Amino acid sequence: MLYLIGLGLSHETDITVRGLETVKKCKRVYLEAYTSILMAADQASLDKFYGKEIILADRELVENGADQILDGADKDDIAFLVVGDVFGATTHTDLVLRAKELGIPYESIHNASIMNAVGACGLQLYQFGQTVSLVFFTDSWRPDSFYSKVLENRKIGLHTLLLLDIKVKEQSIENMTRGRLIYEPPRYMDIACAAQHLLEIEEARQEKAYTPDTPCVAVSRLGSPTQTFKAGSLKQMAEYNAGAPLHSLIMLGRQVHDLELEYLCQFVDDEEEFKKLVATDQEYFKPPAWIPPESEDLSD
Amino acid sequence: MLYLIGLGLSHETDITVRGLETVKKCKRVYLEAYTSILMAADQASLDKFYGKEIILADRELVENGADQILDGADKDDIAFLVVGDVFGATTHTDLVLRAKELGIPYESIHNASIMNAVGACGLQLYQFGQTVSLVFFTDSWRPDSFYSKVLENRKIGLHTLLLLDIKVKEQSIENMTRGRLIYEPPRYMDIACAAQHLLEIEEARQEKAYTPDTPCVAVSRLGSPTQTFKAGSLKQMAEYNAGAPLHSLIMLGRQVHDLELEYLCQFVDDEEEFKKLVATDQEYFKPPAWIPPESEDLSD
Repeated sequence: MLYLIGLGLSHETDITVRGLETVKKCKRVYLEAYTSILMAADQASLDKFYGKEIILADRELVENGADQILDGADKDDIAFLVVGDVFGATTHTDLVLRAKELGIPYESIHNASIMNAVGACGLQLYQFGQTVSLVFFTDSWRPDSFYSKVLENRKIGLHTLLLLDIKVKEQSIENMTRGRLIYEPPRYMDIACAAQHLLEIEEARQEKAYTPDTPCVAVSRLGSPTQTFKAGSLKQMAEYNAGAPLHSLIMLGRQVHDLELEYLCQFVDDEEEFKKLVATDQEYFKPPAWIPPESEDLSD
Repeated sequence: MLYLIGLGLSHETDITVRGLETVKKCKRVYLEAYTSILMAADQASLDKFYGKEIILADRELVENGADQILDGADKDDIAFLVVGDVFGATTHTDLVLRAKELGIPYESIHNASIMNAVGACGLQLYQFGQTVSLVFFTDSWRPDSFYSKVLENRKIGLHTLLLLDIKVKEQSIENMTRGRLIYEPPRYMDIACAAQHLLEIEEARQEKAYTPDTPCVAVSRLGSPTQTFKAGSLKQMAEYNAGAPLHSLIMLGRQVHDLELEYLCQFVDDEEEFKKLVATDQEYFKPPAWIPPESEDLSD
């Protein structure tokens, strides 16, 4: 049997009771170790907590070594642990499909992930549109496919959750070409970097998906003991020191309810100013919508 | 201290280890008992599992009795348990804001909810648009506000998660007016009822948000031992016997990836037919998009 088990967001004790009971009875336990990290736990603390040794599964093993992971799973119980919930990444559906081909039964044990726990900032989950990912820009690669998705969400009034890049166990191009298994230190995109990327792409595309004044919420270390939220304009986010990883950014949509706003006001520097930003943004995409605010000013 | 603790979807052991440790140390433990139910547990099994008596919190208590729930929380630990994750319903942010007013600290312990665990059907979570709720129609009340939201999602290619009505501890109008605390048996909307409501509203509004052939996925008893998925057309869903509650329905958007489709094919009656439905639907909102398929046929 293959068990796919979500670990939740932060502590080793964020696993469910049923998840823990299952891990304890499994013959081999893999931890998917490249799409996210547990913020208040590490491999050693997990080994100790489970009372058994965990096998770290990197991208190479998960994407190309499914048969190795599944070896013997027709007779023995194998656990595959995922930070957050089980089906956050495409590669895990791959693993299940392979298990199915091999006639190996599987079961999922779910847990919290950023996709639902983000409701803790006070924005209603059913008001979010599609989720987008922001990756680190390089000198030659500045991908902006997120931009049209944010625009689509905001045109219909929805909030956007932006997941920020994580680089774990990455090789430099030099080490890769020389075949040296030397890994770069892990890098986690912070709020300021994400906001700067967003501002740069708006500047380049000028399609008015958002402005430097668009209200945002920074979500830092969600579910960990040092969890923080910060609400403010995109411009403010570009200068915000959010501290240790992990971070996510939310860009608000027009449909902000009074209770959502009241809740967010716990996390602002200047309540009056933030309410004004939100009120302005609520007019931004209203019909005729395609007239940017600057042109409206001219008509006064 | 106020602890808001998610219980997950089904078993009493779906609570996290940290959640369970917290419940055990709390002086009073409330269970929010009207927005959802645990499918494989009840109050008696939870009492036994926690080793303490749970207080059921109905809508009246949660929405108007916050001070009663929070009584003594400045000195003692109080737990407020929520099926799924903590911030699925607006009323829980209300409770936190009231705690804050009273100077009572709070902490959330997150868990899986339908909003993220639905990824188990193989559709990618980041491809979902806004979530909508379907309520039971009555002779005089057939609310269709969900319709324009589904249309908005589908116009930009996104999947829609439709949450289906749950009626727990509801009074008949007669009993309510007579002040009799007699409750109707609980009712849970099933897949066929939801699909029939959708078809009726499309028939009435004729804005072509979807057709009887639009591909859907029925999600039944997610996270429970009898969890099932079924993929097919909306028309097929209107005749589908999904079994015991709880159910949710997903209407697909145009952006279906190959791997999503391959995964869904595990849950179809006729793979060829389903792939054809999806291929047809992928053309449905493509530019010029606003010409309904019937008019396109005429131009042939």
